Amino acid sequence: MNYNAPLTQMKFLLRDVFEAERVWASMPATQDVSSDVVDAILEEGAKITREVLAPINRSGDEEGVHWSKEGVTTPKGFKEAWKTYAEGGWIGLGGEPAYGGQGMPKMLTVLFEEMLYASNCSFALYSVLTSGAALAINAHGSEQLKQTYLPKMYSGEWSGAMCLTEPHAGTDLGIIRTRAIDNKDGTYSITGTKIFITGGEQDLTKNIIHLVLAKLPDAPAGPKGISLFLVPKVIVKADGSLGARNKVSCGSTEHKMGIHASATCVMNFDGATGYLVGEINKGLAAMFTMMNYERLSIGLQGLGCSEMSYQNAVAYAQERLQSRAATGAVNPQKEADPIIVHGDVRRMLLTMRAYIDGSRAFSLYTGMQLDLAKFHPDAALRKKAEDLVALLTPVAKAFISDKGFDSCVLGQQVYGGHGYIRDNGQEQLLRDARIAQIYEGTNGVQAQDLVKRKVIANNGAFVTLFLNDVRASLSSATHTEASVIAALSGAIRLLEQATDRLLKAAGTDPDYAGIVSVDYLHLFGLVTFGWLWLQVADKAVALRDNMASAKTTVDSAFLDAQLVTAHFYFERLLPLADSHAHSIQSATSSLMTLSARHFSR
Amino acid sequence: MNYNAPLTQMKFLLRDVFEAERVWASMPATQDVSSDVVDAILEEGAKITREVLAPINRSGDEEGVHWSKEGVTTPKGFKEAWKTYAEGGWIGLGGEPAYGGQGMPKMLTVLFEEMLYASNCSFALYSVLTSGAALAINAHGSEQLKQTYLPKMYSGEWSGAMCLTEPHAGTDLGIIRTRAIDNKDGTYSITGTKIFITGGEQDLTKNIIHLVLAKLPDAPAGPKGISLFLVPKVIVKADGSLGARNKVSCGSTEHKMGIHASATCVMNFDGATGYLVGEINKGLAAMFTMMNYERLSIGLQGLGCSEMSYQNAVAYAQERLQSRAATGAVNPQKEADPIIVHGDVRRMLLTMRAYIDGSRAFSLYTGMQLDLAKFHPDAALRKKAEDLVALLTPVAKAFISDKGFDSCVLGQQVYGGHGYIRDNGQEQLLRDARIAQIYEGTNGVQAQDLVKRKVIANNGAFVTLFLNDVRASLSSATHTEASVIAALSGAIRLLEQATDRLLKAAGTDPDYAGIVSVDYLHLFGLVTFGWLWLQVADKAVALRDNMASAKTTVDSAFLDAQLVTAHFYFERLLPLADSHAHSIQSATSSLMTLSARHFSR
Repeated sequence: MNYNAPLTQMKFLLRDVFEAERVWASMPATQDVSSDVVDAILEEGAKITREVLAPINRSGDEEGVHWSKEGVTTPKGFKEAWKTYAEGGWIGLGGEPAYGGQGMPKMLTVLFEEMLYASNCSFALYSVLTSGAALAINAHGSEQLKQTYLPKMYSGEWSGAMCLTEPHAGTDLGIIRTRAIDNKDGTYSITGTKIFITGGEQDLTKNIIHLVLAKLPDAPAGPKGISLFLVPKVIVKADGSLGARNKVSCGSTEHKMGIHASATCVMNFDGATGYLVGEINKGLAAMFTMMNYERLSIGLQGLGCSEMSYQNAVAYAQERLQSRAATGAVNPQKEADPIIVHGDVRRMLLTMRAYIDGSRAFSLYTGMQLDLAKFHPDAALRKKAEDLVALLTPVAKAFISDKGFDSCVLGQQVYGGHGYIRDNGQEQLLRDARIAQIYEGTNGVQAQDLVKRKVIANNGAFVTLFLNDVRASLSSATHTEASVIAALSGAIRLLEQATDRLLKAAGTDPDYAGIVSVDYLHLFGLVTFGWLWLQVADKAVALRDNMASAKTTVDSAFLDAQLVTAHFYFERLLPLADSHAHSIQSATSSLMTLSARHFSR
Repeated sequence: MNYNAPLTQMKFLLRDVFEAERVWASMPATQDVSSDVVDAILEEGAKITREVLAPINRSGDEEGVHWSKEGVTTPKGFKEAWKTYAEGGWIGLGGEPAYGGQGMPKMLTVLFEEMLYASNCSFALYSVLTSGAALAINAHGSEQLKQTYLPKMYSGEWSGAMCLTEPHAGTDLGIIRTRAIDNKDGTYSITGTKIFITGGEQDLTKNIIHLVLAKLPDAPAGPKGISLFLVPKVIVKADGSLGARNKVSCGSTEHKMGIHASATCVMNFDGATGYLVGEINKGLAAMFTMMNYERLSIGLQGLGCSEMSYQNAVAYAQERLQSRAATGAVNPQKEADPIIVHGDVRRMLLTMRAYIDGSRAFSLYTGMQLDLAKFHPDAALRKKAEDLVALLTPVAKAFISDKGFDSCVLGQQVYGGHGYIRDNGQEQLLRDARIAQIYEGTNGVQAQDLVKRKVIANNGAFVTLFLNDVRASLSSATHTEASVIAALSGAIRLLEQATDRLLKAAGTDPDYAGIVSVDYLHLFGLVTFGWLWLQVADKAVALRDNMASAKTTVDSAFLDAQLVTAHFYFERLLPLADSHAHSIQSATSSLMTLSARHFSR
């Protein structure tokens, strides 16, 4: 598999659609970020993912990780790749400059993370978990913890892992059993078993910094009694050097459907030494600080896999000769035409592309709001961005990963039987993308978060905030056909009606939100993608009509392709909004009446 | 994984909904088939799939098949299971009585095939391919071929394989390169390479009977120059005993996403001895005789996998404790409620069940039409059934396997992270179901077949024939609420409008049919399932209102569950018809204007 980061589309979105330079110039923390710097980083990112990470993706899947009592070994080539990767400074790309991070905006790191996942999901996870753990330490850790751990994590000498799930507690973290005892010397003793710990053990780094959720003996029941602890695999001495092994061990690794080269560990903490991060009993809130970043990142996993699948599918469709075009042979000298001439193959490819490019725009937009929320000098603008991030994060995580998976299914389908064969790589992308719909809160849980905490809890205020921006775009889209405006306006109305219904039912029917949540999230995602495609299409026409004077890196053929894809989205994919809206409106809670045992055969 | 065939639902559909006994009584060939006989067979089928085949499904997936120059070895336990299975007479269940088959109607065999796939897809394929090859030989072979091969295939002493695909020719069989030379002694020499040959080599049987598509030297180009040959792995002597090895060998087996215990072989024919089946240059037509059976069977693969996934998901949802019900704890003595109390979990389970039970009804209905087409004394009725089979087969194959796959994704999702772990089996079902969307003609090819050969080619006559029956059911559904009648009537109108648009565009826009074909097939499938759910619901109410005198095997709790599922279908799933219809109506051929290279990044 040859992965080539879609730099043209990335730069077009950054520069032309979202005018990132203006955003960066408006904030002191990002004032020094220029398009030149960003371009150079993107080019380097494209290079390392193409040359170092993509080549060990298939082999990593076949070999998987190896567990023994001594530890976990990653597949051939991963150790060397990690060294190159860490030396490139990629892990600290968005990290805090005061501790050795590069402080780059999220608008850039989302693009690089997409490349990471596209080229090698399993490898990406070791890096992303380290950045994520560093983010939590930076946000909630003491100055000493930050000075001790962040520089070595940003440099990739040490890695990070998140230890939340237990055998009996996944979604419901309130019932975890891992216990923390205060040693009264500034440390805690952590005891318990955590499962599904990505990168819990590996041979890439000399130390692994676990962030562990645990309960103190006198903690309140439920989510309000959870604290967060930093538990290093190897104790770090006062001078920063490594000391004794901590009482942390990996009991086994899981055999999974995909991400075979990512070590998914059972972790045993047997009175391990830990350090409190943030305040006692506020561990879940501390974890949630990073959730908006991590959940967006998992959306990017779905996006990355589907971009790789798309690139493979296009190449295959251009090469594979089978049957003739409906309008007559285009390849009469050969025994058949390339399958890209067939309408249904194009339907599959454009469906993938419409979701992929839409997802990229969505992740950039969400990244921009994360940057504004963090860096903007204007408090009102920060607040608005925070609200939008809160609203959009579950949509970004679930909708992008759902459409990413669906796109991987299509990318495999384009290959026919050859897509079912492991060698061709398409089936791995589907298996690797599948987990993005499940972990970091299942997509069902994302939908619950959306309808309950982000819509009902504020009586629809965030939705109104968002739709005001969407409507403003409709008015300013002066280059766009009336039919597109009408299609999007119709879908917006469906979303408003669904929101009204949700809010009305909230007081009277406690089950309603839960039973329509996934339909609502998908309706929301479709409208959001419509809004993003409107902006892309409007900008594409504006540039194309003015190519001579336009300051852009793209050519008119690229813009035409964007426009064809945009129209395809409005004609063929946005209509899905109809059925989600219909389903939301016609849903009754009758399904709650069936007794649990009558689901059985 | 414990598989229990859903006998209650199966018998309900057979007896109450489709009144199979009346159908069987109307045809001389099936007059002796009684509900008692059928029940006994179904019970035995449930037993062998539960006790013999399901227990070796996971282990077969982990072990896979082993290739060496000497041949292919199936996983541990497969050989013993095959022996038991063959001795039970299952392979000849629907076979021709004159040659040792049991002559059971398709209405019964579809149910047994579903059980087969549900318990063990890989094992099922060895059997189904054998039955399929026997069907083709029975339909087109000479009396001598039939006498020589059929009895041993029905008994499972020998197996069958279909050799169509070549490295460069899958969908486009017209360009195959395998050659047949007439030896002028009643035999042919076959030379060529075939790929993706399911069960092309294995250690279950002493002989393997390959049906091979090949071209004679002077054959016309394209599909009209293809002939069909029977090529045994071991030459059968005049007395029926086995002679010398034929020049047939397995070059390798594929490493695939799923169905690991099914040997997918590269088969080399090096001047192998073959016997003509049917007429010269009419091989593709001969193969198509069995296609309607095989394609329906592949739909059953998707159905079987999703039924197994459903059974697992229900059991898990009843056991797994996580969070509380929206209306308050139902399990206050435990730390959390079983997840089946959550609306979104019920949405997933009922989505699966609505598609599964709908698929079972659809396969029974299609099976009934196959029986009528084959056995009914009234020629007009046979013709009608043939037309319906032609129309519905691509829908049954593609829609059932698509929804089967989607259901397996949901069944995995219900498990959360535990569904991604191989041990729990849910992820295997998804991988095994995936191939059903690809082989035996991809689902995209099924959609092309539907719109071009089954709708446009007869100017919509088959659709009219079908919808007349559907409308008749609407009139006679006297136990059904007006809202359901209205919902289905609306969907029927959408299908009629889409059909009109398809027929109008056929003359003016050669690309249109191809670009909307998959949306059209799904719209068709949704309407068909709506019709079937109407019949189920109407019968359920009729029986429930009259339990005392009703002659049925089901109880009122079962009927209530059917009704909840039916309403769920009409409220939540049938609305998908809206978006497919909208997409069909708004589709333009603009996607054909994009040059092939502009799909690349």
